Amino acid sequence: MKIDILTLFPEMFAPIYSSMIGRAIKSGAINVNIVDIRAFSKDKHSKCDDTPYGGGAGMVMMAQPIIDATRALDSDNTAKKIYLSPRGKVFNQTLAKEYSAFDHLILLCGHYEGVDERALELCAYEELSIGDYILTGGELPAMIVLDSVSRFVPGVLGSAESCITESFSDGLLEYPQYTKPAEIEGKAVPEVLISGHHANIEKWRKEKALEITLKNRPDLLNKDK
Amino acid sequence: MKIDILTLFPEMFAPIYSSMIGRAIKSGAINVNIVDIRAFSKDKHSKCDDTPYGGGAGMVMMAQPIIDATRALDSDNTAKKIYLSPRGKVFNQTLAKEYSAFDHLILLCGHYEGVDERALELCAYEELSIGDYILTGGELPAMIVLDSVSRFVPGVLGSAESCITESFSDGLLEYPQYTKPAEIEGKAVPEVLISGHHANIEKWRKEKALEITLKNRPDLLNKDK
Repeated sequence: MKIDILTLFPEMFAPIYSSMIGRAIKSGAINVNIVDIRAFSKDKHSKCDDTPYGGGAGMVMMAQPIIDATRALDSDNTAKKIYLSPRGKVFNQTLAKEYSAFDHLILLCGHYEGVDERALELCAYEELSIGDYILTGGELPAMIVLDSVSRFVPGVLGSAESCITESFSDGLLEYPQYTKPAEIEGKAVPEVLISGHHANIEKWRKEKALEITLKNRPDLLNKDK
Repeated sequence: MKIDILTLFPEMFAPIYSSMIGRAIKSGAINVNIVDIRAFSKDKHSKCDDTPYGGGAGMVMMAQPIIDATRALDSDNTAKKIYLSPRGKVFNQTLAKEYSAFDHLILLCGHYEGVDERALELCAYEELSIGDYILTGGELPAMIVLDSVSRFVPGVLGSAESCITESFSDGLLEYPQYTKPAEIEGKAVPEVLISGHHANIEKWRKEKALEITLKNRPDLLNKDK
């Protein structure tokens, strides 16, 4: 899977070379390409933003560098194009799985007061929000999407990791976890977990997962998956 | 405002020194402290994780290094402590504003199969999720929270930035933006935006914002703010 990320701040992407995503890039399971939008500016000072028509504070990212960069990366127009924006539909685990089926993703990171609407229309960018909060730019959201989509790409997770039961995969949040020592400041590990009785352990974990979901996110229990 | 971030991967935090957050750190408007949990391990190999009680794949982060790090950073026990976890309540702009009122935040980044439950209980960590998707660790979510909370801290945004109308602040998503040139591949800027008629521009923007919100996020229109 190829993932191009269009940004004005390429240096922000250092974290992707750590941890699981870093290993997936090194192994070739995913091919991530951080593209500096400024390289596509036709302005002699590589300017990529300008004041908004109609007035108002802030700057708007110009259409031309984005359109040219997108077309250069996707000459056959087959990539799935996503613009990270608080205006978009809300990202979730179902969408992550959907996106992982594409051979080529292009993620566009906005900044300032957003992007000239015509760039989004002419390149057919779909708008995607990672949640209902305001951020300085689309770089952190692009890394979030990269991380969560990559986990569905074959070869990215090791066999141990991929069989891990994770929140949302069965519609429930995760049960509590404990590791050594057995007691910490008077708090003992729940007895069932050291019983060795697998059926009871599974039953306890399922009950706890349900309890936590009911307490923190009752909305998940009523959701169509 | 002081923000401590507890992590096993301090090198992932390079992006916070870019852009708006980087400037806020330099100016002293926020004081961000990236703390390596390993420094608090009592194990001779600085081990910070172990196998889960009750069995199952993956490793669990040990309680002791987290408890010791948290207490060392918050000796008077006044910090708001947040554990980034898909099990938590869902982060949004209202919570960002709420958190920005604290003098001291501690953000704990999980990895692997999570954290020994007793560390969360003994240190009174509140669990917070940035959205319904699975990520490799809590580092990107911690940067998301840092970015969005910092924007409410006085002195972080410049005066131009802080008066910008942003998605969610009035319960509506943002209207479309345009910048020069007036025409791109046959697509002209909407005429009203070059009319110079401020009342009409404002009316058009409000209508478009409402239209986009109705189309992409009708749920926002029914939400209590």
